[in-house]
Amino acid sequence: MARDRLIYLPLGGAGEIGMNAYVYGFGPEGKERLILVDLGIAFPDMDSTPGVDVILPDISWLRERAERLEAIFITHGHEDHLGGVGHLLPFLDAPVHARRFTANLARRKLTEKGQNPDAIRIAKPFPEMIAAGPFQVGFLPVSHSIPESSALVIDTPAGRVIHSGDFKIDRSPVVGEPFDADLWAEAAKPGVRALVCDSTNVFSKHEGRSEAEVAPNLKPLVASAKGMFVATTFASNVARLQSLAEAGKAAGRSICLMGRAMRRMTEAAVEEGLLKDFPRTVSPEDAASIPRENLMLIVTGSQGERRAASAQLARGKYFGIELAEGDTFLFSSKTIPGNEKDVARVMNDFSEMGVDVVTDDDGLYHVSGHANRPDLEIVQGIVDPQIVIPMHGEHRHLREHAKLADRLGRLGVVAPNGTMLDLAGNQPRVVDHVETGRTYLDGSILVGQFDGVIRDRVRIALNGHVVVAVMVDDDDEVLEDTWVDLRGLPELTRSGQALASLMEEHLAMQLGRIDTRTAGDDEKLEDMITKGIRKVAQDEIGKRPEVTVLITRLTAE
Amino acid sequence: MARDRLIYLPLGGAGEIGMNAYVYGFGPEGKERLILVDLGIAFPDMDSTPGVDVILPDISWLRERAERLEAIFITHGHEDHLGGVGHLLPFLDAPVHARRFTANLARRKLTEKGQNPDAIRIAKPFPEMIAAGPFQVGFLPVSHSIPESSALVIDTPAGRVIHSGDFKIDRSPVVGEPFDADLWAEAAKPGVRALVCDSTNVFSKHEGRSEAEVAPNLKPLVASAKGMFVATTFASNVARLQSLAEAGKAAGRSICLMGRAMRRMTEAAVEEGLLKDFPRTVSPEDAASIPRENLMLIVTGSQGERRAASAQLARGKYFGIELAEGDTFLFSSKTIPGNEKDVARVMNDFSEMGVDVVTDDDGLYHVSGHANRPDLEIVQGIVDPQIVIPMHGEHRHLREHAKLADRLGRLGVVAPNGTMLDLAGNQPRVVDHVETGRTYLDGSILVGQFDGVIRDRVRIALNGHVVVAVMVDDDDEVLEDTWVDLRGLPELTRSGQALASLMEEHLAMQLGRIDTRTAGDDEKLEDMITKGIRKVAQDEIGKRPEVTVLITRLTAE
Repeated sequence: MARDRLIYLPLGGAGEIGMNAYVYGFGPEGKERLILVDLGIAFPDMDSTPGVDVILPDISWLRERAERLEAIFITHGHEDHLGGVGHLLPFLDAPVHARRFTANLARRKLTEKGQNPDAIRIAKPFPEMIAAGPFQVGFLPVSHSIPESSALVIDTPAGRVIHSGDFKIDRSPVVGEPFDADLWAEAAKPGVRALVCDSTNVFSKHEGRSEAEVAPNLKPLVASAKGMFVATTFASNVARLQSLAEAGKAAGRSICLMGRAMRRMTEAAVEEGLLKDFPRTVSPEDAASIPRENLMLIVTGSQGERRAASAQLARGKYFGIELAEGDTFLFSSKTIPGNEKDVARVMNDFSEMGVDVVTDDDGLYHVSGHANRPDLEIVQGIVDPQIVIPMHGEHRHLREHAKLADRLGRLGVVAPNGTMLDLAGNQPRVVDHVETGRTYLDGSILVGQFDGVIRDRVRIALNGHVVVAVMVDDDDEVLEDTWVDLRGLPELTRSGQALASLMEEHLAMQLGRIDTRTAGDDEKLEDMITKGIRKVAQDEIGKRPEVTVLITRLTAE
Repeated sequence: MARDRLIYLPLGGAGEIGMNAYVYGFGPEGKERLILVDLGIAFPDMDSTPGVDVILPDISWLRERAERLEAIFITHGHEDHLGGVGHLLPFLDAPVHARRFTANLARRKLTEKGQNPDAIRIAKPFPEMIAAGPFQVGFLPVSHSIPESSALVIDTPAGRVIHSGDFKIDRSPVVGEPFDADLWAEAAKPGVRALVCDSTNVFSKHEGRSEAEVAPNLKPLVASAKGMFVATTFASNVARLQSLAEAGKAAGRSICLMGRAMRRMTEAAVEEGLLKDFPRTVSPEDAASIPRENLMLIVTGSQGERRAASAQLARGKYFGIELAEGDTFLFSSKTIPGNEKDVARVMNDFSEMGVDVVTDDDGLYHVSGHANRPDLEIVQGIVDPQIVIPMHGEHRHLREHAKLADRLGRLGVVAPNGTMLDLAGNQPRVVDHVETGRTYLDGSILVGQFDGVIRDRVRIALNGHVVVAVMVDDDDEVLEDTWVDLRGLPELTRSGQALASLMEEHLAMQLGRIDTRTAGDDEKLEDMITKGIRKVAQDEIGKRPEVTVLITRLTAE
C-alpha cells in the first residue's frame, strides 16, 4: 500500500523575492489533495521584462491538478502574496480564505476585474481551524508591515507545519496585532514537523525594530518643517499612515492622501475597524487652497514609480499642487533593490525645485517589516521545529537561513521553486523537480516566459530592427523595388551615407544574382536577405540588428 | 573695453555621477581661450539606453569653438574622467595633459583605437605649472581610489581656481601619494577664488576611512578560507589589488588576475613604477592546475557586469576554472546604485554552487574613494576659497554641498551642466545656459540623445512592433494581399484567434472602402493603417504597438 506523502512545493517565492505561491499536498503519490498558500505577483523591469504589466508565477502544474485543489489561503494583503488572485483565480476553482482586511482587499480586486467576490471567505484567527481535505489550517496572527498578517498553522495526518508568511517580531505595531509569543508557543505545543519561514532579512544582524519607534521621530520633523510637508511610504503600511497623519495633525496640518493605493488601503482599514482615530482628511482638490504651511500630503510612490503621486509632484503640478523652495519631502520608506535610479530621479527633481528631501539614511523614519537574524532565532526557539525550510528569499537568503537553522541544531533544507519535498518520512526527501517559471501579463494577454514575445522586444531594444519588403513575381523573379525600413537604427553611416540605401543596394546586387530555386523558397530567401542586411549593418554601423523580411508573391490574376 | 571673463561651464558631471567634462575660459566675452578638464563617459542601462555601448557628454558647444581650446587636462584614470578621450579627441585638436599613470592608460586607449598616442603629454606634479593660453595649470596630487589622482591648480589673471577632481583625505593610501595637507595649504596660499569640488559623498556623515584599513581585515579572511579564494574589486583600485594579493601570498596562495581591465591596470602600474613588490602572478591557463586551496583569483566584475570574469565564473567554467562548495567569493567593493540586480544575480549563482559569498556589508573589506562630509569641511578649511562650486554629483549632492559651504561662511553655487558662470567679477554670475546632453556610442556610430534612434528602440521594447506591407497599383487601388507581421507581440488573442489575421481582416475591410485620394497619399494611407492596427491591438490584446507601414506602389512597366 502506498504511503501517504506530505508534500511542499514552492511555485514562486523561493529563490526570489516576489510572486509567492506555495503548494502543500497530502495523500498517496500522485493523488495528494492540495492547498495553495498565497498567490502573488512580481514587478517587471526594463532589463528582462520591458512593457510587461505584471509578473505571475507559472502555475501550470497546479492548473493540471486543479481538481485536487481544496482551497487557497492568503497570509496577508501585500501584492507579492495577494496580487495574483484577480488574474489566476479563474483557472483555479477553489475557495480563497483570508482574514478580514486581506479579504476586503481581495474582494476589491475581484470586483475591479468583474469577477465574483464571493470566492473570498473570511477566516477567524487561530485557534479556529479551517478544514480543507486532509488539512486543517489556522491563521496565526503575526506582526508585519500590513495589518492582520498571519502565519498558517497547517495540520496534516503527518504532523503540523507552520508557514510563517511574512513577519517580524513587533510587540507594539501601532495598528493591528502585536507578536504574541504565548500564542505562538501554544501553536507549537503539539510539536512542529517543519517551519517554513520568511528569509528576507536573514543577513540583517541587529535585532528588529518596532513600528512604534518611528512615530516619535516623525513628530519633531513635521513640527519643525516650514513649508508644505509631503511624506511617502508603502500605502499598505497602515500603521505608518497613522503615525504620519498624527504627526501632521499634531503640527496643525490638514492631511491629504494622494494616490489610488493610499486611498484604497485606508478605506479598507477603516471598513474593517483597524483605523479608528485616523485624522480627518481633505481631498486633493480641496488641498490646493490650504496654505502650504498648514498642509501635509501623504502620497504613493516611495519607489519612484513614474505614475505614482511622488513622481507626478516631482515633475510639476499635480491636482493643482506644486512643491516649492522650503517644502519638505520625506521618504518614510526604504528603496527596494532595483529601484535606486527611479528614487534618485524623484529626489533630484525635488532638489531642483529647492525642496528639502529627507530619507531614512539614519534609520529614523522607517523600520523593516521582516524578521532580522536574531528574530529568526527567537522564532525557531519558540516553534522548535524539526525542519526549517526557508522561503521568501533569493537563493543566497535561503542558503544562509538554512545554515542558521543547522547551526541551531535543526535541519535546514534549501528548496527553491520547483523542488518537491516529501516531509512525511523520517527525513525530508526531494521527490520531484517541477517545471516552474513566470507568466507575464502583457496588456490583457498572459504570455509565457519562454514564448519569445518578450525576448523579441529585448532583442530589438538592444539591436534595432530592419524591415525588408520584397516582391516576387509568379515566375519566381524578385522584383527590383525591394524596400528597407529602419527602426531604432541611425539613418546615416559614419561616412554620412544613408544606411537604408546601402542595404537596398546590397540586396539589389544580391537578389539580382539568385537562382529561382532560392527565390521560390520563402525560408531560403529570408535567410539570405537577413544575412545580407546584418553584414551591411555590421560593416557600416557596428551592429547586428533584428531583421523582418516580408515576402509578397504576386500572382497573375 | 570688454572686461575679461573667467568662465566655468560644466558639459558633463554636474547633475549626474559620470561623464565629467568641465570647461574653463578666460578672455573677453565670446573670445575666451578655453581649457577642458576631464573627458569621461557614463554607462548605459536598459531603462533609457538599451543597446548603447558608451555614453559621452555632448560637446557640441566645445566643438564649435575648438579653435579656442588650448589644452585638455585629465585629473585621473577612471573611465568617467578619461574614457571619452578615445572617442572625442578626434574632434578636439588639443594636447592632453595627464600625470604618468593616467597618461599610460590614455595612450593605451588611443593605441587600441588606432589613434596617435603622442597627443598625450606627461605632466609633473605641482608646483610645476603648464601654460595653456591665459591659464597656468598645475597637477596637485591627491588621494583617491586610483593612483596619481590630481586636483588642478588653475591660475588665471582673475585669480586661482582649485578643481578638486575626485578625491578623499587618505594619509596612508597603500599605493600612490598620501593626502598632503601642507602641499594643499601651499597651493591655497596666494588665495583661492573658487574651489570646484567633488560632491559624491556629501551625504556621508562619518569621517572617511583610509585604504590602509582594509588590508588587516583581508589577511585573516583569506587565511581562514578553505577552498579557492576569489576576490573582485574595481580593477583601477591598484592599492586594493596590492592588499588582496598580499593577503593571498601570506596565506600561501598563488595569485591569478582575471579580466582584461585587471591586467591592463596592473601592467600600467608596474610600468610606471607604482607597483614595486606585487606578488608574482600565474596566468589563468596555469591557474586551473593549481590545487584550489592554494589559489587566489582576483577578478573583474564587482558590479555584476555580464561579460566580466565574476559573472562568467558565476555561470560556470571559465578558463577551465569552476567554483564549488566550500570556495569563498569576496566582493571587496560597493555596489554602485543601479547595479543591485546584476550583483545579486552573481551572488545567487554562487549560492547555488555552494560558494560562500562575503560582502562589505559590515564595512570591513572596502573603503570609498571620495571625501565624506567632514572631509569636505577639512578641505574647505585648508583651501579657504571665496566660492565653492560643487561638481561630480547629482543635483541633490550639488545642492547639499552648496548648503554646506554656505553654512561654513562661504558662497556655495549650484551650477548644473550647461550653466555658464563668470567668476571674474565681485560676485559669480550666471552668464549663459548652454545646451548640453548626451551622445551615445551605438555600435560604431555616435547618436544624439534626441535623434529618436534610442527612443524608437525603447518604444518597441515597451509596446511591440507591427509591420504592415501594403501594395498599391498604378490606379491607386490597394491590392488585397496586405501583410501583417508581429514582433514582440503575442500571436494569439485572449479568445485564441490569430492576432495578425484579425489585423489583416480589419485592414482589408478598411482598405476596401477608401477613396483613391487617400490611397494615393502615402502619409494619409500610413496614418489610417497605423490607427487601424492600434485599434485592433488595443481591443484584442490591450496594447498600443509601434507600427511600420511599408507601401509599395506598383507601376506598369
